[in-house]
Amino acid sequence: MRTDEAGALRHHGDAEVRDGGPGLVDLAVNVRADTPPAWLRARLAASLTGLAAYPDGRAARAAVAARHGLPVERVLLTAGAAEAFVLLARALEVRRPVVVHPQFTEPEAALRDAGHEVGRVLLREADGFRLLPGAVPEDADLVVLGNPTNPTSVLHPSAALARLARPGRTLVVDEAFMDAVPGEAEALAGRTDLPGLVVLRSLTKTWGLAGLRVGYVLAAPDTIRALERAQPLWPVSTPALVAAEACVSPGALAEAERAARATAADRAVLVEGLREAGLTVVGPPRAPFVLARVPEAARVRRELRALGFAVRRGDTFPGLTGDAWLRLAVRDRGTTEAFLKALRAVRGGG
Amino acid sequence: MRTDEAGALRHHGDAEVRDGGPGLVDLAVNVRADTPPAWLRARLAASLTGLAAYPDGRAARAAVAARHGLPVERVLLTAGAAEAFVLLARALEVRRPVVVHPQFTEPEAALRDAGHEVGRVLLREADGFRLLPGAVPEDADLVVLGNPTNPTSVLHPSAALARLARPGRTLVVDEAFMDAVPGEAEALAGRTDLPGLVVLRSLTKTWGLAGLRVGYVLAAPDTIRALERAQPLWPVSTPALVAAEACVSPGALAEAERAARATAADRAVLVEGLREAGLTVVGPPRAPFVLARVPEAARVRRELRALGFAVRRGDTFPGLTGDAWLRLAVRDRGTTEAFLKALRAVRGGG
Repeated sequence: MRTDEAGALRHHGDAEVRDGGPGLVDLAVNVRADTPPAWLRARLAASLTGLAAYPDGRAARAAVAARHGLPVERVLLTAGAAEAFVLLARALEVRRPVVVHPQFTEPEAALRDAGHEVGRVLLREADGFRLLPGAVPEDADLVVLGNPTNPTSVLHPSAALARLARPGRTLVVDEAFMDAVPGEAEALAGRTDLPGLVVLRSLTKTWGLAGLRVGYVLAAPDTIRALERAQPLWPVSTPALVAAEACVSPGALAEAERAARATAADRAVLVEGLREAGLTVVGPPRAPFVLARVPEAARVRRELRALGFAVRRGDTFPGLTGDAWLRLAVRDRGTTEAFLKALRAVRGGG
Repeated sequence: MRTDEAGALRHHGDAEVRDGGPGLVDLAVNVRADTPPAWLRARLAASLTGLAAYPDGRAARAAVAARHGLPVERVLLTAGAAEAFVLLARALEVRRPVVVHPQFTEPEAALRDAGHEVGRVLLREADGFRLLPGAVPEDADLVVLGNPTNPTSVLHPSAALARLARPGRTLVVDEAFMDAVPGEAEALAGRTDLPGLVVLRSLTKTWGLAGLRVGYVLAAPDTIRALERAQPLWPVSTPALVAAEACVSPGALAEAERAARATAADRAVLVEGLREAGLTVVGPPRAPFVLARVPEAARVRRELRALGFAVRRGDTFPGLTGDAWLRLAVRDRGTTEAFLKALRAVRGGG
């Protein structure tokens, strides 16, 4: 891997906001605004008195298992999905890993860091970045994809993903943004009938816990055991465990569902505005962000920043070629309208 | 490794308390009582509003570097010392690792999990569990020991450890309990003149942050880079970073020093009581726990538990043979006197 390419794989939206100076309106990081909610902050604050004890993950594990109707042997809490990618790259016997792009770059970076040669399946703009039959090589024994996909916002049909599962292959479906899809349509979490299925979930985006490092893996018990053996002792902090338990409660799930519907409505405003501005939006978008084809994307991004808006460059994602892509987080209507106004000004149409 | 042996390496004091039922007085876990302090909890609570952002470790890294008078390139924040042991086991090129026992068992467990054959140097009771010249094989290219040592409470002279350093060898000194030694006597943290030196530090014990997962590594820049490459993205949570920065401030260091002196005084009460009860204490003990030679240790431990006191069994530590060892955390004078009374009752001398 060339150094510049490695650097691109390790570029994430937080750098766009952090290095852009203070006061930017953030459309670069895919975390829901105004989170974590007050009730969750209160639960976390209450956990701080118990920090002297080592973390005990049993209650959180049981709660996550119950939420997905699974036995605890099929659940592993991790320090965010990022830890899960490292564990998968290191703990599983893999000869021919394949990553379906464009998608979140950490899985490939983790596989390469663990010494693997990584094959790429590049979905095409002409196909709407959808997965076509036969796209994944038959001999791939580890397949990684995201659903809904970061950065394309494409939601693959669960049946299409299920067809990728087979004995002798680990199928990793990163469902980090699935709880932002109303009804969690097309989710594979909870399925136990698909051989080699590994589902990753995050609590980061919907609940505003990016700083806390918490997520989980759902997989067959032997896979869970292999990943667990590769974890450090006490891998997940007590506040993160408290958050995991809290965020899978029925009340929290109902709140997430309401947020997912509100996001869908807010996204419609963004998409309509982008199209009115003459831009193409990949879609239909189903995640809390959209991918737009934007001519002169680098200039537009730079000038948006000067107007106070941070957006995510697209060209660091494998498969998104040219100076032509921006990823935009869905925000509330007011923020989106202010952003669209700035965008029109930058593009000369305002 | 036999399964029972692996199980023993993975036995820690938290299990003694957790599995012993509620309400036990904890002399098993080496975390300072009444921690984290209120000022630190307040700092952590304030950090909860910022959890939606991904962790940014730069300020904490700079603060730790400044505390030890080192450049930031020599510092790596980790999710507790446990993560550091996994990183060391996986990221370094090692052919002949050696662990000096008895000591904390996680380094050996992490090395074995990473596929290494691990040599053991067993320090002897007859030598007071001190390190004698020539004990470590010349060809060991990774040497791990603790100072002060868990569970023996022995503080090795820094000069004796420095003599183990040489080109082509990584010398890992786990100083997890060094901040509980008044004046941090015999510390190697901050030294840059010893080739291959890696110092591990923890904030867990003095500050009551076992649940938060935070510690750090001090080493040469190339070693730090190798370890960092093996870390997941965003490895340390925002509250843990806030804690790290707070706990290396001049005020916190002064508080730790006062606590270390109080611990020394409390330890004297414990040691005197144990000796009056006819028991041998390894020593002079310099850590916030002591190792005692206790005949019929299993029975004594079981009966102490019935009287409400959890103590740490010693026989899971390599080198502590026979039914003869207990590790006891130093607590305040009142707790210690109550414990000593229970101990006398159990031993038939009360």
